[in-house]
Order: sequence, then structure tokens, then C-alpha cells
Amino acid sequence: MRLFHPKEGISTQTIRRLPQYLRVFYRLHGYGRELVSSTTIAEETHLLPIVVKKDLQAVGAPSKLRAGFKVAGTIKIIEQFLGWNNLNKAFLVGVGHLGAALLGFDGFKNHGLEVVAAFDTNPDKVGKTVHGVPVYHTAQLASVISQENLKIAILTVPAAPAQGITDTLLSAGIKAIWNFAPVHLSVPENVIVQQEDISSGLAELCAKLKSK
Amino acid sequence: MRLFHPKEGISTQTIRRLPQYLRVFYRLHGYGRELVSSTTIAEETHLLPIVVKKDLQAVGAPSKLRAGFKVAGTIKIIEQFLGWNNLNKAFLVGVGHLGAALLGFDGFKNHGLEVVAAFDTNPDKVGKTVHGVPVYHTAQLASVISQENLKIAILTVPAAPAQGITDTLLSAGIKAIWNFAPVHLSVPENVIVQQEDISSGLAELCAKLKSK
Repeated sequence: MRLFHPKEGISTQTIRRLPQYLRVFYRLHGYGRELVSSTTIAEETHLLPIVVKKDLQAVGAPSKLRAGFKVAGTIKIIEQFLGWNNLNKAFLVGVGHLGAALLGFDGFKNHGLEVVAAFDTNPDKVGKTVHGVPVYHTAQLASVISQENLKIAILTVPAAPAQGITDTLLSAGIKAIWNFAPVHLSVPENVIVQQEDISSGLAELCAKLKSK
Repeated sequence: MRLFHPKEGISTQTIRRLPQYLRVFYRLHGYGRELVSSTTIAEETHLLPIVVKKDLQAVGAPSKLRAGFKVAGTIKIIEQFLGWNNLNKAFLVGVGHLGAALLGFDGFKNHGLEVVAAFDTNPDKVGKTVHGVPVYHTAQLASVISQENLKIAILTVPAAPAQGITDTLLSAGIKAIWNFAPVHLSVPENVIVQQEDISSGLAELCAKLKSK
């Protein structure tokens, strides 16, 4: 049995695969399974067994040579690694189609986020709730952030207003932004920006198509 | 000046960064700029200059030692690498919030895709258009695919029906699926699946938050 030795500097690609493993472990846990081999996880996730093994060992999941990974224990280790055992209060700016789709994502609470507020400038949306989340006017950003002690912003606005809203968020003390606007935000070094780019997935798809 | 030597086996991470570079090049091209240094591109994309340089050289963009990359020429090279100089006919299945958000993405035509049809089972949506794209009933999938000679499917349905719809797509001869459903699809080896996972970005964000 390996000792618990989570390495520093775990790769982004490993981190991005962790939710896939969690989904498999959650399902097996639901069936009452106690142990699972990296081969089984690999089959379910369409990855190589060695990749699965290395990823799980990198975050500190102990494995027995033959028996594989403990289901409940590995869930805890991954959740702790990602901080998904605690909830961070988050809010969303821009309740368009994408924003509404994200507000409807029922997995946030399992993923460490509690989305407690949304903001938009459209008077048809302000004052209503979307998927149970109240929508405020964007002019109220600073006051709601401070009242509710919000830490994480989800930005689903068009490119044009994104930097201006970011500046407001920074003034209000926000330290992490999950950015879906197709623009690079200028922020101080101590602020985390996680950039999502729909074009990146499309580039991957197209490169695969071209190489066929 | 380096010769045009695109390497085999370009990394996924390089491919995922190409759209960012393209956006910078497009903007500079709009301003009439002819040359740009990797340092400037790095500043705009918040990447290291050496990463930019290696990525662009990997797809075969020639660079002059001091002057940098030719704007118009590099655009052509990246577009050709990704096949974005040609349009592939695509369609979308599942016109929920996320599906509607994607249909509203005005960049598809610049990204090699022409989305010509959408499918849903909701009678309120069937027969209408969303962002100019006609919505058909999912029961019509096979016939519309063959009539319109469609090649690429964008799957924005919930996890439960995803595999069943995929089986229909495979019977209709679809060879590439851009999958936003949170489930791994079983497909033959010669079919391309590009999996998008909202949880992966969230995992990255949370790992960064934890390591602060």
C-alpha cells in the first residue's frame, strides 16, 4: 500500500480528469462497491489504466497492488483535494442563455460552489429568480457582494462589458473569476481567473477531424 | 527564417490555445499590422513568450528571428491546420439553455462549422427557429441527416438520453460528435468524440483556490 504523498505541481490535465473519476466512484459507491481497479475506471472513462493510476496516486489516493482503489476513501481524497467538501459562495453575472444554463447546473453543490445570486441589466430579468437563484441589477454588484460575503464570480457576459465588470468585481474584493466571456481579463497577480473557451474544444474536434 | 515543418503529434494543449492566438491575429490584422512578436502575443494571451513561439512553430508558422510572425500568413496557417478555411455542416441535438446558447454563438462560421439544423422533442420548440436555425423533432434525425448530408453532431442533451441518441447518430453515419452531455459515449473507434465537461473547468478553478 502506498503512503499518502500528494505531490506538488499536479498537472492541469490530471486536475481536469478528476471530476470524471469522481462520477465513476460516486456511482460505484451508490451500488455499495468497496474497491475498484484502475482498469475498471479506465474502461468507464475511456482512458488508459496507467493514466488513471498515475492521476489518482498524484492526488494521494492509496492503492493496493491487486485490489485497486477504495471507493469511499478515494472520493474523500479527491473531494478534499479540490476543496469540494466545503461550499464557497458564488454568484453569476450575465443571465443570458449560457448564464441560465449554468444556473440550472444541479451539480454545483457537489462541486464546492453555492450560487446564491445572479446579476443582469435586463429589466425583464431583474427581481425574478432563475432556477431558484435571485437576479439583481448589475448596479447592485458591490453592495450584494459585501452583504453576502461572496468570493467567487462566474462571468457569463459578452466580451465587450467583461473587463468593466471585472474592475467592479476587483474593487469589491473578489479573488476568483470563472470567465466564460471570450476575452482575456486584466487582473492583479493574486486574483485567480479560470478561462473557459468554447473555441478550444472546437479546435480539438477540428484537429481530430483533419487528422483522420 | 524557419522552414514550414509542421510536426506530427501536436499536443492537445497547443491545439486548445490556437483559437486564442487567432483572436489576437484577427484583431491585429484588422488594424493593418503585418508583423507581431511572440512577446506581444504572450502579453495579450497571458502566456509565456516561449509557449507562444513553440505553439506557433509546431503548427508550421514561420518566424523571423527579430521581426516575429507574419499576421496574415499565420492566420492562414492556423486556419488551415484546424480546417477552419472550409465549412463542415453540423447540427445540434437538445435545444435547452445550453443548446440555445451554442446556437447563438456567432463565431461558428469562423470556426469551420455551419450549424444548419437543431433537434428537440419539446413541441413548443419544434417547427420554430432559434437564432435562425430551424428546430426539427428528434424523431426526424435520421432523415434530415441524410437529406442535408450532415457530418458533425453537437450533443446538448441530458445524460440519460445521450447514448440512445448517439446510437441513432451512428446508424445515420455521423463520424464526429461534440458532446456536452455529462456522460461518456460508447462509439466505434473510427468515430470522433470531443467531450466537454463543465466540471473540469470548475476543478481547475477549485484546485487553484485551494493552493492559494
